[in-house]
Amino acid sequence: MTNNNSKIAFLYLNEQDMIASGVTDIGRCVDTMAEVFKLLSQDDVLMGGKSHREHGIQLIFPKESPIPDFPLEDSRDRRFMSMPGYLGGTFHMAGEKWYGSNGRNIGRGLPRSILMFTLNDVETGQPLAYMSANLLSAVRTGAVPGLVAKTLAASQPKVVALLGAGVVNHTSFDALMAVFDSIQSVRILGSSIHSKSAASTQQRLNQKYSQIKTEICADAKAAVANADIVLEAVSVAGRTWPVLQTNWIKPGCTIISSGTMAFSDEDTAMQKFRKVVDNRGMYAGYLKTYTEYDAKGVRKTSGCPGMECVHAIEEGILTEDDVPELGDILLGKAPGRQSDDEIFMVTVGGMPILDIGWGTVCYREALKKGIGTQLTLWDEPALI
Amino acid sequence: MTNNNSKIAFLYLNEQDMIASGVTDIGRCVDTMAEVFKLLSQDDVLMGGKSHREHGIQLIFPKESPIPDFPLEDSRDRRFMSMPGYLGGTFHMAGEKWYGSNGRNIGRGLPRSILMFTLNDVETGQPLAYMSANLLSAVRTGAVPGLVAKTLAASQPKVVALLGAGVVNHTSFDALMAVFDSIQSVRILGSSIHSKSAASTQQRLNQKYSQIKTEICADAKAAVANADIVLEAVSVAGRTWPVLQTNWIKPGCTIISSGTMAFSDEDTAMQKFRKVVDNRGMYAGYLKTYTEYDAKGVRKTSGCPGMECVHAIEEGILTEDDVPELGDILLGKAPGRQSDDEIFMVTVGGMPILDIGWGTVCYREALKKGIGTQLTLWDEPALI
Repeated sequence: MTNNNSKIAFLYLNEQDMIASGVTDIGRCVDTMAEVFKLLSQDDVLMGGKSHREHGIQLIFPKESPIPDFPLEDSRDRRFMSMPGYLGGTFHMAGEKWYGSNGRNIGRGLPRSILMFTLNDVETGQPLAYMSANLLSAVRTGAVPGLVAKTLAASQPKVVALLGAGVVNHTSFDALMAVFDSIQSVRILGSSIHSKSAASTQQRLNQKYSQIKTEICADAKAAVANADIVLEAVSVAGRTWPVLQTNWIKPGCTIISSGTMAFSDEDTAMQKFRKVVDNRGMYAGYLKTYTEYDAKGVRKTSGCPGMECVHAIEEGILTEDDVPELGDILLGKAPGRQSDDEIFMVTVGGMPILDIGWGTVCYREALKKGIGTQLTLWDEPALI
Repeated sequence: MTNNNSKIAFLYLNEQDMIASGVTDIGRCVDTMAEVFKLLSQDDVLMGGKSHREHGIQLIFPKESPIPDFPLEDSRDRRFMSMPGYLGGTFHMAGEKWYGSNGRNIGRGLPRSILMFTLNDVETGQPLAYMSANLLSAVRTGAVPGLVAKTLAASQPKVVALLGAGVVNHTSFDALMAVFDSIQSVRILGSSIHSKSAASTQQRLNQKYSQIKTEICADAKAAVANADIVLEAVSVAGRTWPVLQTNWIKPGCTIISSGTMAFSDEDTAMQKFRKVVDNRGMYAGYLKTYTEYDAKGVRKTSGCPGMECVHAIEEGILTEDDVPELGDILLGKAPGRQSDDEIFMVTVGGMPILDIGWGTVCYREALKKGIGTQLTLWDEPALI
C-alpha cells in the first residue's frame, strides 16, 4: 500500500467559489431538479431514518428553560438542522447539509441561516467537498417551484402572487422567469402593507425585471386574485400564516407552497383541488415529529398543505393516488394537468437530495475549472 | 454596519492540527467527559429530535436493491451518520459530527469510519471550526469507559478483559491506564484465537505497556474469568455478538458495553446486576428506529444492554431508578457502588455532546496556540 492510497484531501468552496462554479444558474438548476425528482420517484435515493425518507434531524430549542444562557426558540426560525442523503443516477453521491438559523442574524448583517454542505464519496465516506451552501440552498429551493410550474401550470401564465417576501420567493420568482416568457405582473404580500421586505422585494423585481408590473398588496385576497401561479413561502412565528378561501383562487391556478398557509374551507380545498407533493414519506415523518395538540388533545392543523394531505391519507380520507409525487408526474406514472381549469395545490419542502444534486453539479464544475482550495485531511491516518 | 460584522471566517483543523491541539490527551478527556455527563444530568444539553435525546440520524442502506450501483449494507458498519447537539455550561457550543463508515476501507489503508466535526456558534449558527474527527471520536469514545471505571469500579482493579480488539478498546484501555495504576493483566478476545486484530492489539499493548501481562483468549468465558473490568466493544455483522453467562462474571466486576453483547441468562443479569446507562432517552430512540422482529412478529433481542434495560422500563419490568444515568451518579443524585461485590452492567453509546465537549477543548487549545488554517466563508454574504 502506498501513501497515496491513504492520503485524503478535499475541496473547500467558499461563497465566491460557489458563484464562480455556477451556483446561481437557476435555469440549469431547474433541469437538475427534474433529474433529482425522477430519481426520487425511481427510489434511487436515500434519506435519513428508518423510513429512508426523513427531512433530517433538528435541534429543537425549548421555548423556556430554567438554565441561564440555554438557547431558546425565541426568534424566527431559531434552530439547527442536519439533512443527510444519498442521490443515485449519474450523481451517485452522499452528502449532508448542516445549518444554524436565527432571525436575529438579520440585525447583525448576516443571513438568517448560515448553511454548509458536505459532499461525500459513497464508498469510502470521505469528504470530497465542503462548501458554503447559502446560495446552493437558495437556488435549489427556488428552482423547485420553477420546476413545479413548468410541469403543472396552465400555459402562458401571466399573473404571479408572492405570499411571503423573503429569499425563497426571490429565487422562486427568478426560476419562473427562467422557465416562462409570458409573465406580466407580480403581486407581493409581506407581513403588512408597510413591510420592509415587501418593499425591498418590489425594488429588487423592478430593477431586475423592468418589464414586469409589480404591486404590494394589503391582504392575501388581493394578492391571489386572478393569479395564475401562487408562490407561498411564508415563515412566521406562532400560527399566523396566511389563511385563504378556495373561492379567491382563479380556475387553472397552480399554488405552490413551500412554507405555511391554510384554507379556511380546508375540506373544500382537499376535495376540489388537485394535490401534489414532493415526497409523501417526508410529511409522514413531519407528522410524527411536529404535530401539535390543543388543551383537549385535538390535533392542531399544521399550516403545511403537504402534512394535511398525508394526514388525510393516514385517516383514510384520501388515497396515495389522490396525492401523487412530483417525480411520478415527471415520469408519466401519475397524470399531470388534465384541463385548463384544474387548480393545483402543490407542496414542496426541503430535501437533502436537492442539495446533493445541485451541489454535485457545482462541485464537478469547480473541478473542471480548478476553483476552490484543496485541504489535506491527513497524509497517513493516525489510526486505522 | 461595517464589513467586519458580516464577514465569516472559521478554523480548519486537519488530523495533525488536532494532534497539536492535544486531542490525544486521554486523561484530560476523561475529566472533560465527567463535565459533559454532569451537564447531561442537569439537562444543560440538547440532542436531536422531539425527545431532545436522539443519537442522530442515519442513512440506513438496504441489504439489497434492484437498482445498479445502489449502496448496500454489504460490509461491516456501512452507513452514514449525522450527530448534532448543543452542550451548555462553560462549553456553550453547538456542533455536529458527520461520518461515513465502510468495513472495506481497511483494505484501502483507510480507517473504517472517516469523521468530520463542525463546531458552531450557538447564537448565529455560523461554523467556528471544521475538524478531522477520527482522533476526536476515538479518544472521547475511549475516555467514557475510563470515566465509568473511575466512577464505579471496585478499588484497585487488576485484571481487564477486552471483548473486541478494535480502536474503541485500544483507546478505552488507554483511558483505564490513565485512571488506574493497579492494572496487571489484560485478556483479549478477537473474532477468533487467530484474529489479526487481536494479535495487533496484543502487540500494541506489549509495546505501550511493557509491565502488563497480555493474553489472547479462545472464548468469552476465558476472557472474562476473574476480570475486574470487562470492556466490550464488539462490532460484528449479523447477530454474532458474544454471549456470556452471568456465573462467569467475578463478583465486584464492572462490565462496560459500548458495542453488542448479551447474556444467555438475560433475566438473571437484569435482576442480579446493577444497571447504569449514559442516556436513557437515546436507547428509547434506538428502540423506535432499530428494533427487529422475527417471522412471528416477536421482538428480537438487540444485543445492546442499554436498549434491553430501557425496553424493560417500557414494559414495566424495571423502573427508571433501577437504571440510573452515569451523570446522576457523578452528581450524587443516584447511588454509585455500594459494596465490593456488586456487579455493574454499564452501557455507553456515542453522543454528539461528547464530541462537542472534547472538540471545544481542542478548539480553544488551537486558538490559544495559533494552530490550524483560517478559512473565509465570505467577506459580505451575497444574500441576506
